Amino acid sequence: MRVYNFSAGPAVLPEEVLKKAASELFEYENSGQSVMEMSHRSKEYEAIHSGCTALMREVLAIPDNYKVLFLQGGANMQFDMIPLNLMNSGKADFVVTGQWAGKAQSEAKRYGTANIVASSKDKTFSYIPELDSSKFDPNADYFHICFNNTIFGTKFPELPQTGNVPLVADMSSCILSEPVDVSKYGLIYACAQKNVAPAGVTVVIIREDLIRDLKDSNVPTMLQYKTYADSDSLYNTPPTYSIYMCKLVLEWVKSKGGLTAMKQYNEKKAAVLYNYLDNSGLFKSTVEKKFRSLMNVPFVTGKEEIDKKFIAEAKAAGFVNLAGHRSVGGMRASIYNAMPIEGVEKLVAFMKKFEEENT
Amino acid sequence: MRVYNFSAGPAVLPEEVLKKAASELFEYENSGQSVMEMSHRSKEYEAIHSGCTALMREVLAIPDNYKVLFLQGGANMQFDMIPLNLMNSGKADFVVTGQWAGKAQSEAKRYGTANIVASSKDKTFSYIPELDSSKFDPNADYFHICFNNTIFGTKFPELPQTGNVPLVADMSSCILSEPVDVSKYGLIYACAQKNVAPAGVTVVIIREDLIRDLKDSNVPTMLQYKTYADSDSLYNTPPTYSIYMCKLVLEWVKSKGGLTAMKQYNEKKAAVLYNYLDNSGLFKSTVEKKFRSLMNVPFVTGKEEIDKKFIAEAKAAGFVNLAGHRSVGGMRASIYNAMPIEGVEKLVAFMKKFEEENT
Repeated sequence: MRVYNFSAGPAVLPEEVLKKAASELFEYENSGQSVMEMSHRSKEYEAIHSGCTALMREVLAIPDNYKVLFLQGGANMQFDMIPLNLMNSGKADFVVTGQWAGKAQSEAKRYGTANIVASSKDKTFSYIPELDSSKFDPNADYFHICFNNTIFGTKFPELPQTGNVPLVADMSSCILSEPVDVSKYGLIYACAQKNVAPAGVTVVIIREDLIRDLKDSNVPTMLQYKTYADSDSLYNTPPTYSIYMCKLVLEWVKSKGGLTAMKQYNEKKAAVLYNYLDNSGLFKSTVEKKFRSLMNVPFVTGKEEIDKKFIAEAKAAGFVNLAGHRSVGGMRASIYNAMPIEGVEKLVAFMKKFEEENT
Repeated sequence: MRVYNFSAGPAVLPEEVLKKAASELFEYENSGQSVMEMSHRSKEYEAIHSGCTALMREVLAIPDNYKVLFLQGGANMQFDMIPLNLMNSGKADFVVTGQWAGKAQSEAKRYGTANIVASSKDKTFSYIPELDSSKFDPNADYFHICFNNTIFGTKFPELPQTGNVPLVADMSSCILSEPVDVSKYGLIYACAQKNVAPAGVTVVIIREDLIRDLKDSNVPTMLQYKTYADSDSLYNTPPTYSIYMCKLVLEWVKSKGGLTAMKQYNEKKAAVLYNYLDNSGLFKSTVEKKFRSLMNVPFVTGKEEIDKKFIAEAKAAGFVNLAGHRSVGGMRASIYNAMPIEGVEKLVAFMKKFEEENT
């Protein structure tokens, strides 16, 4: 029986996508081979690759002056690639709203000045700090935010006004969950394993004027955006099967009505859980209302032994991966695009029953 | 109908492996989820991950003082990671036996002196040069070879005697094709998409004393071997599905009798093709006999239009990806572990018929 999987990532994928992938794993269309076996220079694979890129552009309404790149190494690799490629003058601004935002900042310190303009560490990252734009460096090479914070369940309610400084955003846990005005960003990046595809591919959307020629630098060829931009991400063998899966997911998103429909559905889903949390006598949300993520919903009972009991009983009932991140404890329900609303409704019913039995 | 796929990579995978993967794509065992959906911190995935590592150690008989790492980015990323991690004193020796060996050398130049001790460029890399060990730098940080040259179809007939200098080998296109004495190497690396798994995971086998602490250096965290060694390759989300596929392939190799049996089968397969090439009036091998690869067999007719005709007719008959690498032209049949001997026999029968019709 299929479980309801609330993992923060790798995460639930749409059932229709998994069924389609299973049905054509052994032979793709009439190619006589699996997608996994296709030469990345073959016509069959190139159709998948360019089809995926085109769908990504269409679904996210990406302007023509942006490139879509497929890389490897996850968001962690971007924590280095971004400063290596964008830190021309050697300084950038960071808002530290959680562990990943913090890592992006601390890795960037290898390459220059990584200025922290605001942080919400004082209250365990349970909110997004107000930003004082007079503290922004107008000469920074970029301004980095983590738009949705997977561990702490927060999301920026509005974008920082960075003027001419390119805004760079980690959207690993929210990309494809709602429409994005790409033109407001210099660079958007996301690992795949939440809303995009299985782990193994990383998406970068970059404004073309930010792609520098680093041929004669000491930046590894594989860490230069230009390497991917110039070759349509086919400089070397890309993670072909992950890109195929990404294409299937994008087709699914499109078939559901695209990102406007996704947003409506995600808001409806999240409301089911937040409404219950705001009225429960046992469970409570850890995040201030206006900063709440649509994708990651942390909650606690305040008693560690009750949390543990809940997680164990929920697992036995088919609601898996509800433990909070190992760094914070408590619970977290990640409710990405592919989590059906029935899963959230059933989880809430289970929580109500647990609350009755344990208070 | 399943084609015979002679692609150099991504390449043919064992039918049994593809069928098993297809059958459990939607639900793995009784987990209620796909492997693609599993948290990399879950018990279910950790069993796959540690099982894959253990099988790799067993099949390759890897000594205890070596670590097995799963990375991303292919051999190209290793062209940088190796010098970044191993070039302590700033110099290394290289044998240039083809395009990839050459790229390994030219990327290493970013970080220090990349000395070319021998090259076979003079005859289009159709042989492995004799090595004069008096030209080896006894103080080099490492000595790099590409053990099997995918594009040119050559293989080292014996290993260079490098004394105390660690031997580093790119085994992307020959790993798992025959037994290897791992203790002779400091580091072995291979991209997956030939004999190991679909594209998306890179295997590194490294002697523990070569793993340096680079925490305070300017080497990106994700490019430090120690990051992976200290975390069992779980510092961040690894390419989980590719690692699962790798485990299935290793189980298949083991079920076939391991690497000794693989070598026998591969020698038998390659002999079918080489014997025909050595007796054909139309096709001929481009490689000197004692340097011939078991995995990649380039051949030519000497006439470009006949080559093209052959490739097109072969494709129509179900023998695909027989074109040589875009840098050299001609033909190339890659006959990795998963290529059945029937595929080679039928190809040779087709070549004989083509020869009769075209001479």
